[in-house]
Amino acid sequence: METNEKNGAIDDYMEALREGDRVKMNALYEHLEAIDIAIALGDEEDLIEPFCHLTSDEKIASILEEAEEKVQIEITGYLDNYRILYLFNYMQKDNIVDILGNLPDQRGRQIVSLMQEGDKKVIQKLLGYSEDSAGGIMTTEYLALDGDLPVQSALEKIKEIAPQTEDIETVFVITASRELIGVADLRDILTAEPGVRLRELADREYIYCEPETDQEEVSRLVSKYDLKVIPVINKKKAMLGIITVDDIIDVIVEEHTEDMYRLAGVSSEEDLDSTLGDSIRLRLPWLFINLATAFLAAFTVRMFENTIEQVVALSATMSIVSGMGGNAGTQTLSIMVRSLALGQVEGKSKWHLLFKEIFLGLINGASIGIVTGVIVMLVYHSIYLGLIIFLAMIANLIIAGFFGCLIPLILKKCHADPALASSIFLTTATDTLGFFVFLGLAQLMLPHLIG
Amino acid sequence: METNEKNGAIDDYMEALREGDRVKMNALYEHLEAIDIAIALGDEEDLIEPFCHLTSDEKIASILEEAEEKVQIEITGYLDNYRILYLFNYMQKDNIVDILGNLPDQRGRQIVSLMQEGDKKVIQKLLGYSEDSAGGIMTTEYLALDGDLPVQSALEKIKEIAPQTEDIETVFVITASRELIGVADLRDILTAEPGVRLRELADREYIYCEPETDQEEVSRLVSKYDLKVIPVINKKKAMLGIITVDDIIDVIVEEHTEDMYRLAGVSSEEDLDSTLGDSIRLRLPWLFINLATAFLAAFTVRMFENTIEQVVALSATMSIVSGMGGNAGTQTLSIMVRSLALGQVEGKSKWHLLFKEIFLGLINGASIGIVTGVIVMLVYHSIYLGLIIFLAMIANLIIAGFFGCLIPLILKKCHADPALASSIFLTTATDTLGFFVFLGLAQLMLPHLIG
Repeated sequence: METNEKNGAIDDYMEALREGDRVKMNALYEHLEAIDIAIALGDEEDLIEPFCHLTSDEKIASILEEAEEKVQIEITGYLDNYRILYLFNYMQKDNIVDILGNLPDQRGRQIVSLMQEGDKKVIQKLLGYSEDSAGGIMTTEYLALDGDLPVQSALEKIKEIAPQTEDIETVFVITASRELIGVADLRDILTAEPGVRLRELADREYIYCEPETDQEEVSRLVSKYDLKVIPVINKKKAMLGIITVDDIIDVIVEEHTEDMYRLAGVSSEEDLDSTLGDSIRLRLPWLFINLATAFLAAFTVRMFENTIEQVVALSATMSIVSGMGGNAGTQTLSIMVRSLALGQVEGKSKWHLLFKEIFLGLINGASIGIVTGVIVMLVYHSIYLGLIIFLAMIANLIIAGFFGCLIPLILKKCHADPALASSIFLTTATDTLGFFVFLGLAQLMLPHLIG
Repeated sequence: METNEKNGAIDDYMEALREGDRVKMNALYEHLEAIDIAIALGDEEDLIEPFCHLTSDEKIASILEEAEEKVQIEITGYLDNYRILYLFNYMQKDNIVDILGNLPDQRGRQIVSLMQEGDKKVIQKLLGYSEDSAGGIMTTEYLALDGDLPVQSALEKIKEIAPQTEDIETVFVITASRELIGVADLRDILTAEPGVRLRELADREYIYCEPETDQEEVSRLVSKYDLKVIPVINKKKAMLGIITVDDIIDVIVEEHTEDMYRLAGVSSEEDLDSTLGDSIRLRLPWLFINLATAFLAAFTVRMFENTIEQVVALSATMSIVSGMGGNAGTQTLSIMVRSLALGQVEGKSKWHLLFKEIFLGLINGASIGIVTGVIVMLVYHSIYLGLIIFLAMIANLIIAGFFGCLIPLILKKCHADPALASSIFLTTATDTLGFFVFLGLAQLMLPHLIG
């Protein structure tokens, strides 16, 4: 693996940095990727200050672009405003906006106010979009050429502009008023006759997004249509920017992490590097919400304490019913949350999905219930206890399927994240109702259980 | 949104298909993307047969490439072997291999045996790689040029080959024996002097993978280094193929679905379209495994039935301790599984992570425990019951942190998927040990509880 081979070089680089050996650092830099240095600096933050003194602007710029938020903040802490402005010359606009967004508000504003008029306008506009929208992740460096340009002149222009753009395979063909006519493939431009006009090569059925489009929706479009770049246009079809596939991958990974964490009751702010204090602050509130639902279940059990006192076997067996409901419901919930995230629920009948889950609960509940019932019957020598757990299991697995399917759909309908807190709602239902059904049945059949 | 605008066109297209109006279909096709037709056919499978009769080979090929497995199988069912072979002329090799992999074994072999010698060799080689490896997802169409070629001739070659390759931005520079020297950017080739040789433009510090590399590792490399394409080379550095970023996005989405589903005890084979029978077959075994662990917890409770009989309040409160342990453990587990999937655990001290989680369990357990203890004390008028639940909560949240952190690490160490069955192991620990600690403490303090 190439990455493994580079571990040696990155260690040598950090060693040279520690020794302040600028010549060795420069020699090793040629064999390294900026992202690897950014990661290494994140692990050895005390080396960030000497790094800023020993490294050239262009290299700092590349590493700053790749670094994660925490390291970006550290690095910029050692640079004055004018040096940061100078570094921006080497960066893509979307990365500049990210870095400005991570600076303290006042400092960010100071730096923007020092910018040249043209840049200032672009950056201020980009800063105005929400971080999670297409506008917030787009960049303004792209290949856009006038549709009336003949291929020959277009190629000249492409050679000129190419070094500054993130993607050259797609050429955006526009009118004089920057309205997007269509997208042309560099392949077609390379092989066309020199006199052909660009607009003749443009595919007018292009996929686009608007600056307000949610980044999750943008990632769905890019992934569905296998795009390498997607244009961002306004209502008048004027071209505002592009989003490249590497930024889309970041969005996909970020959204995945968020979904998975939300289902488990973890904030996506947390990672392995979070301090103990941060982890407590981020996890404890969620646990307290869980505690409230645990008490709800406990109070349900308390209602039946008289029954339990007479048939103590209920206390050991009741948690099987509630637990299995939670497990079955989590299965349904995960499939629903994931399918919603992948846009697979659209166009499907919600009733059909709900009925399927209810029916599945009935069948799986009966299968699990019969096995549980027989074992409980044999252990406690009670046909009635076996029968009660069989019936309660069916009921609770139907409840699990019903809520596991419905909760994410309702959250989505209310424009909330289907993953958020849905497992809380679910286990509240399966625990509380699971205990209630099981102990309620036991209370009804109490004479048979005692006799 | 463009996709929404196209919904009209796709409905019209399906309507034309239903009416057998080939002219209208062809007119509408220009405004559609293959993937949208593939999805629509998946929703109306009875139209697949007329579709095969009414559509030209090139179009069927595009749609077949985009279709999901189920639809691919349906479509190929209506085509004879020679027509399928003919369709392959329009397809990338990686897609051909996917389609062959989805055919019944015998039919796949028949079709391969009918291929021309050159194609047959390539396809058989690709079929030999594991589906989840770099070899299994790579394609053999790419731009590879001899390093001794001057830029001028290289550009001529590029124009010639470009239409058949998936990516033209990256040119692979090779020796006469196909050894990969480095990768050149089309930007640099376009702007270089005509006489410069390609090898002078090649970046020799390229990122690569080998055919055996797991696809998850490949996706990590592509995402980390923001690549649009990654070369697959063998031990002798000979170029075998490339993997493009659109295939990597599919891998990322697939691997994430798998992780999320495995954590929840769902097979990644299942989706919203699964039949009731499939859903039962895929979910029930997991539920039975869960049942076994639920019985383990129940038997733990049963050991203490005498104690519960004397202090029935224990039956309502014990599930709070086990439930909170499950919740806290799931938080830890999710962070560990996700961090392992993103390659963030490498290079970090495992001991440090484990101690942090144990300490976190202590602090969160004490916080949750004090609140729970006070409420239970007030409800049941028993200081001792409050004290027991306080202590048991701390113990169980430490257990949760310990196992939530350790289980994925151990699974990874054993080369198993850290997500697989880890939630089962975790809840077995938090349920069984949670009940044991709580009821065990109660038994020890029984005189105080009764008195």
